[in-house]
Amino acid sequence: MIDRITALIASKDLVALKHALSDSNALELAQLVNELDEVETAIVFRVLPHDVATETFEYLESNAQRRLLNALRRDEVIDLLDDMSPDDRTAFLEELPPQVTKELLALLPESERKIAETLLNYPKYSVGRLMTPDYVAVKPGWTVLEVLDYIRENGKDSETLNVIYVTDKRERLIDDIKIREFLLAPLEKKVSDLMDSKYLYLLAEENQEAAVTKFRSNDRVALPVTNAQGYLLGIVTLDDILVVAEEETTEDIQKFGGLESLDLPYDQTPLRIMITKRAGWLVILFLSEMLTATAMSYYEAEIAKAVVLALFVPLIISSGGNSGSQAATLIIRALALGEVALTDWWRIMRKEILSGIVLGLILGTIGFLRIFIWSYFSDLYGPHWLLIGLTVGFSLVGVVLWGTLSGSMMPMLLKRLGFDPATSSAPFVATLVDVTGLVIYFSVAELILRGNLL
Amino acid sequence: MIDRITALIASKDLVALKHALSDSNALELAQLVNELDEVETAIVFRVLPHDVATETFEYLESNAQRRLLNALRRDEVIDLLDDMSPDDRTAFLEELPPQVTKELLALLPESERKIAETLLNYPKYSVGRLMTPDYVAVKPGWTVLEVLDYIRENGKDSETLNVIYVTDKRERLIDDIKIREFLLAPLEKKVSDLMDSKYLYLLAEENQEAAVTKFRSNDRVALPVTNAQGYLLGIVTLDDILVVAEEETTEDIQKFGGLESLDLPYDQTPLRIMITKRAGWLVILFLSEMLTATAMSYYEAEIAKAVVLALFVPLIISSGGNSGSQAATLIIRALALGEVALTDWWRIMRKEILSGIVLGLILGTIGFLRIFIWSYFSDLYGPHWLLIGLTVGFSLVGVVLWGTLSGSMMPMLLKRLGFDPATSSAPFVATLVDVTGLVIYFSVAELILRGNLL
Repeated sequence: MIDRITALIASKDLVALKHALSDSNALELAQLVNELDEVETAIVFRVLPHDVATETFEYLESNAQRRLLNALRRDEVIDLLDDMSPDDRTAFLEELPPQVTKELLALLPESERKIAETLLNYPKYSVGRLMTPDYVAVKPGWTVLEVLDYIRENGKDSETLNVIYVTDKRERLIDDIKIREFLLAPLEKKVSDLMDSKYLYLLAEENQEAAVTKFRSNDRVALPVTNAQGYLLGIVTLDDILVVAEEETTEDIQKFGGLESLDLPYDQTPLRIMITKRAGWLVILFLSEMLTATAMSYYEAEIAKAVVLALFVPLIISSGGNSGSQAATLIIRALALGEVALTDWWRIMRKEILSGIVLGLILGTIGFLRIFIWSYFSDLYGPHWLLIGLTVGFSLVGVVLWGTLSGSMMPMLLKRLGFDPATSSAPFVATLVDVTGLVIYFSVAELILRGNLL
Repeated sequence: MIDRITALIASKDLVALKHALSDSNALELAQLVNELDEVETAIVFRVLPHDVATETFEYLESNAQRRLLNALRRDEVIDLLDDMSPDDRTAFLEELPPQVTKELLALLPESERKIAETLLNYPKYSVGRLMTPDYVAVKPGWTVLEVLDYIRENGKDSETLNVIYVTDKRERLIDDIKIREFLLAPLEKKVSDLMDSKYLYLLAEENQEAAVTKFRSNDRVALPVTNAQGYLLGIVTLDDILVVAEEETTEDIQKFGGLESLDLPYDQTPLRIMITKRAGWLVILFLSEMLTATAMSYYEAEIAKAVVLALFVPLIISSGGNSGSQAATLIIRALALGEVALTDWWRIMRKEILSGIVLGLILGTIGFLRIFIWSYFSDLYGPHWLLIGLTVGFSLVGVVLWGTLSGSMMPMLLKRLGFDPATSSAPFVATLVDVTGLVIYFSVAELILRGNLL
């Protein structure tokens, strides 16, 4: 596809180009445009029908949008910006350097400029930045027929027609009604007869994450936005919310992988920022992990006497880390989906203690058998192999139990303290368990081997 | 809330109970009901208005649904099942033991039973299981006025009215049109004038994951389902797709935490299954991690000569694991969101090599400084502390670089081989890097310390 398009652009055959593009939707076009340079992109935008061009522009990454605006003529820029839906325009304008935003705002007609400026005035990450003032509002005294006529004449710019809003004389929100109700009701029925005065709304100053939760737990495609006094300001639609929700999930996953969340897609994050975001956590983990060196130095005399003990250090601490990372994953996700609550901590702890003991016994037995079998064929583990086997076996039970327990309780503790549970990432839990795992291992060793090897 | 409800149930004050419940939506009611026993639940369902009761039932977990059906009278069961939307009913029936499904099917009226049986005939995890046959389809020859009249009379049961489907004389799908188009068009316009014959559809036999992708990349609220011959069989709506998508994300996250994905929420997974799902991967990781014991035993002589080397083993291998887990997280998520493709491997590798070197240098410097400073105050590291510091520092550069590289390339390799990239979980990468990390560490040690400590 892309080769054919670039060939057509090169040959300047605009009719054929227009025809070749006519089968793609705006999303596909946006992906296509990502592979073109700005001059080629400008040519593509010139042959696209007006509405498709605007929609495609809204789907572009903000970098690509900026480059394209530079390549277009002034009147083309005005057209594009003017036709964008206000919420997408806000998202675009807020990414620009303030000077460029100002210049672009100046290009807009008076009314659109006012809207854009109002939306940009809301704090970053607030619902106000996501909303669009393009909605249909009707009055309680109208009939269904009047509403349908009104929609036909005034609904063209509305971001959604799936929900119609009812406002009082002073434009305060008093209800939301699904279009379904209007479509199924007799034409002479009054709006007030369809009203149940039960409606959900968002506040413009509210955080976007709160909006995601409200959409999720109420299964809506759009929600109205009001100010603190209840005046209807705009609406937020599901598509914008899904973008916010996806960013949140990415943030959680990246936190879980033990790094600060990137603000841009992987491919667009500059190397310098990428390293900064990773180095922070890596250094913190490294500094904590230094405690293992300290812990090990306490046992230096024991290791010198029984070097064989050192051989199993990586095996034992990693088993604690792995079981802890399993438990943390389960609990973090269950908390995020609301499957478990903080008040369930005792029930979870009981379940995890049992799991930890069983998993520990499984690994402990395998560990013991390994030493048992090896010793049959070689004398790698010396004459005290049985005691060493027991040390490794019992340590594994203790370390896995401890890993499971701290992995499951850490996210709950963090949540209780008001932090994001996802911060108790796999590397974080592993580091915690490494240090304590060493202490468990060498304590068990002293207990079992004292008088023989130690 | 819950206390008030149980008190009202106990006092048998049904009027007050009905009033107390009237403010909650179906989702809130479903959460409430989860805390009641089946007799209390049955009482709540008896006072709920008919449509609210059905919707609440659809939101209940399948276990709660089953218990409730046992507590209700036969005619109440028929009412509930009959009123459920076909797709939710399929989801419910497919979880039951075959004998119970059969009994319940027998309770349904002829027409509903036929629908239920048809849907249950599609393979598990196919689009057919998600679809509902309740949609509105119109003919190209109708006017907009006729369509709106038709919707008013026949649209009541339709799962969505946001999209209207156009079929030919033989009921083959020929277009989908948003309700918006009908609402904005002059009443005398023909359906055929609104048609653009561009439509997306799902095949009933298709996998549900393919449907998620199609919804995501096309920004739809509903998609029609056809058979291979193009006959319209039903529709799938966004709410069902969001549930499937959420399950997929959970599966990915659990895989990433190093365990087989649970099929049920954490709280409902029996202990035995929970342990089985975790033990599998834990044992595989443990067996691989045993290679560290083997690797360590190769260096036993070196450790015996310079016990101080053993002290840094946990620090060094965990640094490799952490940097690997960061890189794996970034790449797995970027692959899942389509931000990077397999063909970008060379660009990613270059970026990760640079990141690895810089991150390694940062950790290596800190590690060296730690030994440098400690040696100023104590003689823990003996007379050769400078060489040991250099050994640790250089090893860290190598291990972090190697961790970053394998963490980023492993998901791409797995994807190339047709596996799910999320399988290269944090524990998996950590285990891989642990073994190689030891080899790097002891090789650097031999190089630097030979002739002095070794």
